[in-house]
Amino acid sequence: MFEVRERDGLARIGVMDTARGRVTTPALLPVVNPNRPIIPPADLGRRFHAEILITNAYILGKGPTRESVLRQGVHDFLGFPGPIMTDSGAFQSHVYGDVDVTNAEVIEFQKRIGSDFGTMLDLFSEPSHDLARASDDVDETIRRAKEAASLRGEMELIGAVQGGLHAEVRERCAREVSGLDVSVCAIGGVVPLLERYRFRDLVRVIVASKTGLDPSKPVHLFGAGHPLVFPLAALLGCDLFDSASYAKYARDGRMLFPDGTRHASDLRESGCVCPVCEAHPMGAIAASEVLLAEHNLHVCFGAIREVRRAIAHGDLWELVERRARAHPSLLVALRELRRHDEFLETFEPTSRRGAMYYVGPETAHRPILHRFRRRLAERYVPPAAKGVIVLPEGERPFGERYGALIERILETADVHPVVKSIWGPVPIELDHVWPMAQSIVPETLDVEALEAAEVFFREWAAGTGYPFGLLWEGDATLDELRLRAPGGRHVDWNASRIRATADFQFGRGASDALLDGSVSYVISKNMGKIRNVVVDGEHVLSLRAEDGLFTLKSEGARRLHRAFAFPRLRIVVDAESVPFHRDGKNVFAKFVRDADPDMRPGDEALVVSPDDELCAVAQSSMNRSEMRAFKRGVAARVREGVPRSPSVPPR
Amino acid sequence: MFEVRERDGLARIGVMDTARGRVTTPALLPVVNPNRPIIPPADLGRRFHAEILITNAYILGKGPTRESVLRQGVHDFLGFPGPIMTDSGAFQSHVYGDVDVTNAEVIEFQKRIGSDFGTMLDLFSEPSHDLARASDDVDETIRRAKEAASLRGEMELIGAVQGGLHAEVRERCAREVSGLDVSVCAIGGVVPLLERYRFRDLVRVIVASKTGLDPSKPVHLFGAGHPLVFPLAALLGCDLFDSASYAKYARDGRMLFPDGTRHASDLRESGCVCPVCEAHPMGAIAASEVLLAEHNLHVCFGAIREVRRAIAHGDLWELVERRARAHPSLLVALRELRRHDEFLETFEPTSRRGAMYYVGPETAHRPILHRFRRRLAERYVPPAAKGVIVLPEGERPFGERYGALIERILETADVHPVVKSIWGPVPIELDHVWPMAQSIVPETLDVEALEAAEVFFREWAAGTGYPFGLLWEGDATLDELRLRAPGGRHVDWNASRIRATADFQFGRGASDALLDGSVSYVISKNMGKIRNVVVDGEHVLSLRAEDGLFTLKSEGARRLHRAFAFPRLRIVVDAESVPFHRDGKNVFAKFVRDADPDMRPGDEALVVSPDDELCAVAQSSMNRSEMRAFKRGVAARVREGVPRSPSVPPR
Repeated sequence: MFEVRERDGLARIGVMDTARGRVTTPALLPVVNPNRPIIPPADLGRRFHAEILITNAYILGKGPTRESVLRQGVHDFLGFPGPIMTDSGAFQSHVYGDVDVTNAEVIEFQKRIGSDFGTMLDLFSEPSHDLARASDDVDETIRRAKEAASLRGEMELIGAVQGGLHAEVRERCAREVSGLDVSVCAIGGVVPLLERYRFRDLVRVIVASKTGLDPSKPVHLFGAGHPLVFPLAALLGCDLFDSASYAKYARDGRMLFPDGTRHASDLRESGCVCPVCEAHPMGAIAASEVLLAEHNLHVCFGAIREVRRAIAHGDLWELVERRARAHPSLLVALRELRRHDEFLETFEPTSRRGAMYYVGPETAHRPILHRFRRRLAERYVPPAAKGVIVLPEGERPFGERYGALIERILETADVHPVVKSIWGPVPIELDHVWPMAQSIVPETLDVEALEAAEVFFREWAAGTGYPFGLLWEGDATLDELRLRAPGGRHVDWNASRIRATADFQFGRGASDALLDGSVSYVISKNMGKIRNVVVDGEHVLSLRAEDGLFTLKSEGARRLHRAFAFPRLRIVVDAESVPFHRDGKNVFAKFVRDADPDMRPGDEALVVSPDDELCAVAQSSMNRSEMRAFKRGVAARVREGVPRSPSVPPR
Repeated sequence: MFEVRERDGLARIGVMDTARGRVTTPALLPVVNPNRPIIPPADLGRRFHAEILITNAYILGKGPTRESVLRQGVHDFLGFPGPIMTDSGAFQSHVYGDVDVTNAEVIEFQKRIGSDFGTMLDLFSEPSHDLARASDDVDETIRRAKEAASLRGEMELIGAVQGGLHAEVRERCAREVSGLDVSVCAIGGVVPLLERYRFRDLVRVIVASKTGLDPSKPVHLFGAGHPLVFPLAALLGCDLFDSASYAKYARDGRMLFPDGTRHASDLRESGCVCPVCEAHPMGAIAASEVLLAEHNLHVCFGAIREVRRAIAHGDLWELVERRARAHPSLLVALRELRRHDEFLETFEPTSRRGAMYYVGPETAHRPILHRFRRRLAERYVPPAAKGVIVLPEGERPFGERYGALIERILETADVHPVVKSIWGPVPIELDHVWPMAQSIVPETLDVEALEAAEVFFREWAAGTGYPFGLLWEGDATLDELRLRAPGGRHVDWNASRIRATADFQFGRGASDALLDGSVSYVISKNMGKIRNVVVDGEHVLSLRAEDGLFTLKSEGARRLHRAFAFPRLRIVVDAESVPFHRDGKNVFAKFVRDADPDMRPGDEALVVSPDDELCAVAQSSMNRSEMRAFKRGVAARVREGVPRSPSVPPR
């Protein structure tokens, strides 16, 4: 039902195909209060382009509306032809302490009114609940999820994730519930956090839930309707949001904005460009609950579209970091993210188009930079030298700026040049690798960013074995340097760049395998940069100008396949699909058996049979957990099929 | 012609009354290209609410349009009934190297076509020009400004400020030109800075210009049409912006956004809520230069309205700090502002409604906090004690959080409690003063903010004479503390708060003058806070709950008048207006002769005659330079008239 089209961070632009139409995610589901629908549901579709609505089955089933909705069905009752999600009453149990309906009754009622997405009746975990209480309640929620799954019939089911602030309980609930026959997983119990601006706790709750969730299922963040949180929640992998805020705030005379909330009566101008604010004077808006609700809807839908725009462009992290400045509590939440880098990194695409912008000292802690520093420590082999020469960060790419100076230094002293960038150390051979060459950084920096650069550098340098005494930071003369690190050598920059990039991208030792033989290059005429790497007459690698990384050719794939043991760099597909990949057909997730745990979206991949026979070279679009979970969508785009090797006897 | 209604930073919401209608500032003047008016000028008024346009007299006078515009006049020619500003050709001289027209000719042509605001032909200072060149060119610009002023007739004249990157030349040009008979001062020569994102240089240029400019004249930032720079430029005192960008970018397929520029063809959704983006699919927008221009106009006008909203709400600094995250070069510009704190501080209002939000480590360097720290050092008298006890920052207001603990400590040891806040040290008696009690700060902070707090504290502590050895940061027990600072005492918190606040607000010694006698308080029933201070039976001061500062009563004013010598705390008005102020009438700027150089907008003020006879107590709405410059508007709102004192013989 759910298929991912584009991704950034844990966010994804996806489509949910329903019998009543397609929903593009991230999506906003306006809440329709059946007793007080301030904007007619038909208008939500026609004028606000809502693709799906949400209303409350518990309220529908209790009130005077019960008989009409049972007779008409929820779509006719609301006058909305598209898909409708219904909530169950769990939130009402949070507000009123209890509800007088059972899980089975609520499921049955939702089926009878024709809900497209019906919600189980979970137990609401309050943030104040202790571990034992949260765990017991989650046991019951899981039991009810199983019951609901057995009762759902044709209705798509929404399984709820509860567990309060207890990460291990959240994760367990997420794992159990998303393993059931549910179509959507909903993270519940977050409204008390949102109401009190506890965005750091929100981050912890979402990350714990996502850690347990089946990544192939769309995730609904129940009750999150303020545009302030959309970018952050989407970045962490929430796909659906429901907004009652547009109406509730309007009743209260308040206007939503991407950076917060303001009382309409405090404003002479809203500073907003939405059709309501463009067409009406502020006094008229402030006096009209409908106009306020319409403004709020415009802003909420706009914020969702802005998130989708950022995902498509690959700069959602920038949007989140910028938006975090709207409230100190969001900034605290942003600073929490680095604690979850190990998890977040596994979903981060290898590179993207365009530059990476410095937004604040938090930028250096993005998962992509965490990965860069880790791969550098694990995979990059520093050349034998008596020390490093540390180059201050300058205009990028580094090599071009420092070229002549570096040549002279290297002929003088036996040192290796490394740039102390604010993202971490960058050996000069890797200065074209994304995002190092594609960063836009202020000329003057805050203390935290400078200190982080220092820490990153020292941590790396400590692992290289270079004696610290030979660090040089641009203040020694060439003569002094020669005394400290006698020697000097000529460096073949092209060869160094290729070796370092290959090890960095594919793993330590990859360069030995890929470049074993007589190496030559094809240099681009325009830029004078390496384009292709040819070994013993065979095209092995192409270097991409946009991100400084290699595209693997089939001969390169063969070499890596020989050099690296299973499952390194592999995607293992079903035996039946092997011939298709040899023919150049893409790898669909449903035919993937397994993959390298270190595989990341965007990485080059060896597509192999269950017997580890190489059948194609591809670029992955998922990580391992996603490949194993998804039943729809492309797991990897095949670049070239690899014919059956004549040297391998058929089995 | 120009009158200020509200203010924040150097920004102001003002009105310019013209024969053809009122213009509210900050205002955006869409540029109409007479040869290619992509949006009809009448639509700019009707649909986009443009109150004023700008077009180019040089182009009008050169082209085939010359005869028509001379015959019809510029308003009929463009079909726009409101005020029209015309530019002179100076920018064309930047683009083409020279123009074949004289200053006198351009002025004459603008008069003949009926321009409401005509521009002199200044010499464009390029950023690359050296001091000598810039200075010589500015001599000629000043000469031409004088010539233009003599020729302007009934046309309102725009005087240009040039001088490239040379602050002293900019300031001289600004002073000379704004001293002439010109209605608007335009800061020119900034387009090359904007094109290259040299926003730090833009800050330097605007600040240098504003330092020289007559503050009563509206300031046009010539060629600044991207919404990215509106908040920053407005904060620094620019009132008018002209945008050709909306049309130029549209021609290029690019869309403006408050956070930057994007190519329409790169987008599937814009993420914008403007009427164009709400009504048309992205493909249609990308294909239509007119729709792109309309989108760009919506966004530009929206950004100007957002600036006005922030000025009215007093949170323009927050908007600027947030928007600075949109591009690293804007962040560098933001970090430049602290270098100009001495100048910026003189325009900063005393307090505002609502909280101050931490946005980033730059927030601590806002002029209002610079002032707080300076007034603390200069005016606050630390009580005699053997040391300070340093309290970590917690929830505000401090006193309420630490109340019981502090009482015990003070009874034990002879120390004085001071909070080490990230805005600077806050002696506990001042913890209600704006913005200390009204700040919203993240729970976790970046290194730069923490280091700044440390530096601010140490600088202040060094001036107090408290021995450093007695600093205590919450890790000593009461017993240890008693050993280090033997003593202990009872503190009357109400008395301490009043004394400290009075000195802080009015100057060292003010508390002695104000509280000389038998002091009693009126305490608010709801909050238990001091409301009124009564001395010897007379109501002297009222403490405002919203900003923790005093409103001065007439008896308080008499006491301060006696205690502080001329011109301290004074606004000196013309003799003829004295009786009106005694009657409670406001002080208009045109009747102000002089004022205390330390007077700030929002400060309490003694209104005095030229003979220094007290005639009213007021709240200023301008600083001294503004009171002396403005011929329109209220310089101070009189709270109470003060009758002629019987003890002072009439002169």
